[in-house]
Amino acid sequence: MKYMDRINTPDDIKRLSYKELNKLSNELRDFLIDIVSKTGGHLASNLGVIELTLALFYVFNFKKDRIVWDVGHQTYVYKILTGRRDRFHTLRKYEGISGFPKPTESEYDHFVTGHSSTSISAALGMARARDLKGEKHNVIAVIGDGALTGGMAFEALNDAGSSKTNLIVILNDNEMSISQNVGSLACYLSKIRTAPAYINLRDELESIIKKIPAVGGNLYKSAEKVKDGLKHLVVHGMLFEDLGFKYLGPIDGHNIEVLIEVLNRAKTIKGPVLIHVVTKKGRGYTHAEEKPDVFHGVDPFEIETGEKLSVKKMTYSKVFGEEIVKYAEKDNRVVAITAAMPDGTGLTEFSNRFPNRFFDVGIAEQHATTMAAGLAKEGFKPVFAVYSTFLQRAYDQVIHDICIQNLPVLLAIDRAGVVGEDGETHQGVFDLSYLRIIPNLTILSPKDLKEFRLMLQWCFKQDFPIAIRYPRGGDTDVLFDKYDDINLGKWETLLVGEEITILAAGKMVQHAYKAAIKLKEKGLDVGLINCRFVKPIDESKLNEIIKTSKYIYTVEDNVLYGGFGSSVNEYLLKHGYKGKVINIAYPDEFIPHGSVDILYKKYGLDTEGIYNTIIKNID
Amino acid sequence: MKYMDRINTPDDIKRLSYKELNKLSNELRDFLIDIVSKTGGHLASNLGVIELTLALFYVFNFKKDRIVWDVGHQTYVYKILTGRRDRFHTLRKYEGISGFPKPTESEYDHFVTGHSSTSISAALGMARARDLKGEKHNVIAVIGDGALTGGMAFEALNDAGSSKTNLIVILNDNEMSISQNVGSLACYLSKIRTAPAYINLRDELESIIKKIPAVGGNLYKSAEKVKDGLKHLVVHGMLFEDLGFKYLGPIDGHNIEVLIEVLNRAKTIKGPVLIHVVTKKGRGYTHAEEKPDVFHGVDPFEIETGEKLSVKKMTYSKVFGEEIVKYAEKDNRVVAITAAMPDGTGLTEFSNRFPNRFFDVGIAEQHATTMAAGLAKEGFKPVFAVYSTFLQRAYDQVIHDICIQNLPVLLAIDRAGVVGEDGETHQGVFDLSYLRIIPNLTILSPKDLKEFRLMLQWCFKQDFPIAIRYPRGGDTDVLFDKYDDINLGKWETLLVGEEITILAAGKMVQHAYKAAIKLKEKGLDVGLINCRFVKPIDESKLNEIIKTSKYIYTVEDNVLYGGFGSSVNEYLLKHGYKGKVINIAYPDEFIPHGSVDILYKKYGLDTEGIYNTIIKNID
Repeated sequence: MKYMDRINTPDDIKRLSYKELNKLSNELRDFLIDIVSKTGGHLASNLGVIELTLALFYVFNFKKDRIVWDVGHQTYVYKILTGRRDRFHTLRKYEGISGFPKPTESEYDHFVTGHSSTSISAALGMARARDLKGEKHNVIAVIGDGALTGGMAFEALNDAGSSKTNLIVILNDNEMSISQNVGSLACYLSKIRTAPAYINLRDELESIIKKIPAVGGNLYKSAEKVKDGLKHLVVHGMLFEDLGFKYLGPIDGHNIEVLIEVLNRAKTIKGPVLIHVVTKKGRGYTHAEEKPDVFHGVDPFEIETGEKLSVKKMTYSKVFGEEIVKYAEKDNRVVAITAAMPDGTGLTEFSNRFPNRFFDVGIAEQHATTMAAGLAKEGFKPVFAVYSTFLQRAYDQVIHDICIQNLPVLLAIDRAGVVGEDGETHQGVFDLSYLRIIPNLTILSPKDLKEFRLMLQWCFKQDFPIAIRYPRGGDTDVLFDKYDDINLGKWETLLVGEEITILAAGKMVQHAYKAAIKLKEKGLDVGLINCRFVKPIDESKLNEIIKTSKYIYTVEDNVLYGGFGSSVNEYLLKHGYKGKVINIAYPDEFIPHGSVDILYKKYGLDTEGIYNTIIKNID
Repeated sequence: MKYMDRINTPDDIKRLSYKELNKLSNELRDFLIDIVSKTGGHLASNLGVIELTLALFYVFNFKKDRIVWDVGHQTYVYKILTGRRDRFHTLRKYEGISGFPKPTESEYDHFVTGHSSTSISAALGMARARDLKGEKHNVIAVIGDGALTGGMAFEALNDAGSSKTNLIVILNDNEMSISQNVGSLACYLSKIRTAPAYINLRDELESIIKKIPAVGGNLYKSAEKVKDGLKHLVVHGMLFEDLGFKYLGPIDGHNIEVLIEVLNRAKTIKGPVLIHVVTKKGRGYTHAEEKPDVFHGVDPFEIETGEKLSVKKMTYSKVFGEEIVKYAEKDNRVVAITAAMPDGTGLTEFSNRFPNRFFDVGIAEQHATTMAAGLAKEGFKPVFAVYSTFLQRAYDQVIHDICIQNLPVLLAIDRAGVVGEDGETHQGVFDLSYLRIIPNLTILSPKDLKEFRLMLQWCFKQDFPIAIRYPRGGDTDVLFDKYDDINLGKWETLLVGEEITILAAGKMVQHAYKAAIKLKEKGLDVGLINCRFVKPIDESKLNEIIKTSKYIYTVEDNVLYGGFGSSVNEYLLKHGYKGKVINIAYPDEFIPHGSVDILYKKYGLDTEGIYNTIIKNID
């Protein structure tokens, strides 16, 4: 019988010996690899925290104690061990187990995470709530060294470090965010990791320091200073101590016994503690250890070879990567910026070809945006490649640093629209709404991969702020064979028709096109416009449509409120349009996880859904 | 003749002796106090940087060198000395000198600032641009200790610290942001300031350290560790050194000679340097030294007494402060959070009455928002009081941490709509648009002070996420004498009328009311609805209006795109409304500085403007 089969509740873990815990961790490793090879998902980070998760269960009781897992994609083991093993094969599938912590899924999940660097803030709020209620349980945040580069983590350290509240921050240092970590903090951590271990010496020193009498005035200050200096000689992590945390570490994150010992010790310490745990991403699965970035988030793969089962097809990210390299060869003002996602955004080739013009700033979208503005102010053409959902982090900077100054930064917004399996926290369905209200910003969205190339070539030549948003993945079909030139604010007529006009933006043009063909086959007089520019809208085209069309439909892969359709509404009402207007878009709710195709269907944004909405509204 | 009169360009400053510079600084002090006592504006911070500004001009050449002033409100002296002295009496007035750096105003202003913590990012971008162009000039960021608590400043330090690029960061440590600083970083800086000065010793030590031979292997590592430890004994600012900066300081920010010496030294250092300058807010003007928070941003005042010239009237901030105290007495789940603005947001009384339930987290809106979510998750009712423009900083956290989990956080959004004299960077005209697209969020806006009280009382009782947005200042008139009870999503009919319906939100109800009375006097059949809930909208009320009204006008103190009017448009079109709809709101441009009344008039949002727009559109 497997050890896994003996674990019915997390309490059962407490009854295992260290040896049994190690056997259990091996079983969990095999189980994880097996499932994720079929479902896809986050693998490397989960393989890295198996021992840590077991140690946490051994020491704490998460019916009472609270835990916030930063970014949340490393909670598979935690989920498996809290009653979700049987359903774990439904991971990331529609109506299945979420790939992130979800309190609605289990009482053991205490806080939704998905974006980076939120855990210390959330945990501090929970710790303060506990204190106000006079309760005594433990509150823990587990945060990666990558997530620690996000500014809000520092904001939280600054607040927590002076708070005196009991809070345990576990720094899971795997020397990676998704890609290799960057920045001075990473250098600092590396220095700690490679320094000789002094844990015992430290304890001795502390007992000596305690004996130094506290005296008043300057002498006291000098004594304090000497203490600090001595501590720095032997204590690692003074940076965290300077920020008000008791630092424990670095410790081997794959040694369950040591982990349990240090976690137990942390429980007894008053005030905020930071435990520095060193782990290896992909631990125990050779392919993932060797290529942790590839196995960060994976599609289904063959376990033995580590090869993806699906054939690699052309994606929007790749097109972006190719075009920016081509243009950068011609124009040395082009520089590229990423917030820790060179691979995901397609910038790897650029980073190899133009290392001096490539800036990976860490998980730091705010800084990336304003740094881009600084480069633009001095005559460069910065391109910040970022996922739609993460650009929310830099909203103020887009307004305040790029657009007020009208600086020529290109926001290359990947993963726009529904992204699928990552779910609520990652859907890129707000960007058209939150971006189009910003003065000076031009917004484009390509109908397909080929148009994306044309648009990028156009974008690189402009000298004002531009956002171009495009979906995850690639195209299924090649539907179009001719492409108008790109002109600022000009839309493209794809199908001529008068009575009914469909105004579609981005990838939804493909679905709308197929729907329109079906409608034409039904004998309806349907026109289809590719609304390449979400802002500015094509007023002269709209003026024509107002004259001829009795029905106008807008279609977009974004929320209805405030989105592309909303901008068309504003114009039509202003110009006294009297026909019928229907906006097809996502409703006012968070979009759950599931495949993109299931989600399109669920929300009526697939071909059939669009077709049906149009038919239904014809009088 | 005054020294000030001899300064025609910044170069003239370089020709003065230290003694003359000190005299000039006194003259500037008097000039500043005199002007700001008449115009209002930021006083204390400017008085604190006079000597620093002079030293910067002495050492650098800002036709070539670049400087980014964080938050930017401390640039009055800089402006006076760069050709804007004659126009300085127009400070913050419509079409006058801006209270913030503005490249369109002067070639000496290199980057727009206004919000906190952007300077290091912008300066790093400029430094990288310089390096790529092969140029040699200096790039400087001046950042306060308060602004340093903002996460993006840390993101920038992390990137800059490992960049090897020449960058000078001047930490202007005045122990204040707007209010007293909080957090462990503030404790750390205070420790440095109060420690004995070791500057010479440090230099000696460094020369000794250099003589320690570099050897390989563990011995090398130990030697490195010993070096670090020894440095920590005598070198201040190891936290910054750990982050990759060369640290110089702390130095007296009112000693021009020392400032010049250290700035000259910084110029010669390769890589990033942080100069820790200690200054006193309000320096040289007793009232401002004693009450730096009061003299942070002031209305016109009498120089001798320091008293404001205008009578203090009731404001929305004060009403908020009163109501939250009243409710907190009844419900101990109410906790209040501010990002370094307890006074501005009206929370001072609360902080005195309920110190354990009050959290000032520093300039850290992101952390504030997620920390609030953590408290809410554990059963509390956190209220985050924040200015509209600064909430942009926490946009992702509102979506990701509050609304996805549907947590009962109350966002008390002050300074919504145009705020006037602070201009582009501070106008709160985007919030209705960017907030209403977020699922699960309810949005209210009061028509006047009294309704604000009623709404707050209602808000405190709810258990879902709410944003309530209200303007700067108070009301001019008392226009209404009866108030319907607040009910979720229900609007209030203020004037009955059928043919024309005005739907107004927030303070604009007052302007619309006066316009409607005039229209009624003209014999028009006008109804006025107070759209208390911007979200959800009152669908049953709208259904009635659709039936009777030929004209619907929406009025809001927000951008037109995606705002309240846009939500009405969406509904009306969905329900086939065939009448005329006109949205009155701000156009798609950044709103400049000037008094609120001038701005209302300019954008047609005063009574007359609303009246005229309505009349003009009646067929």
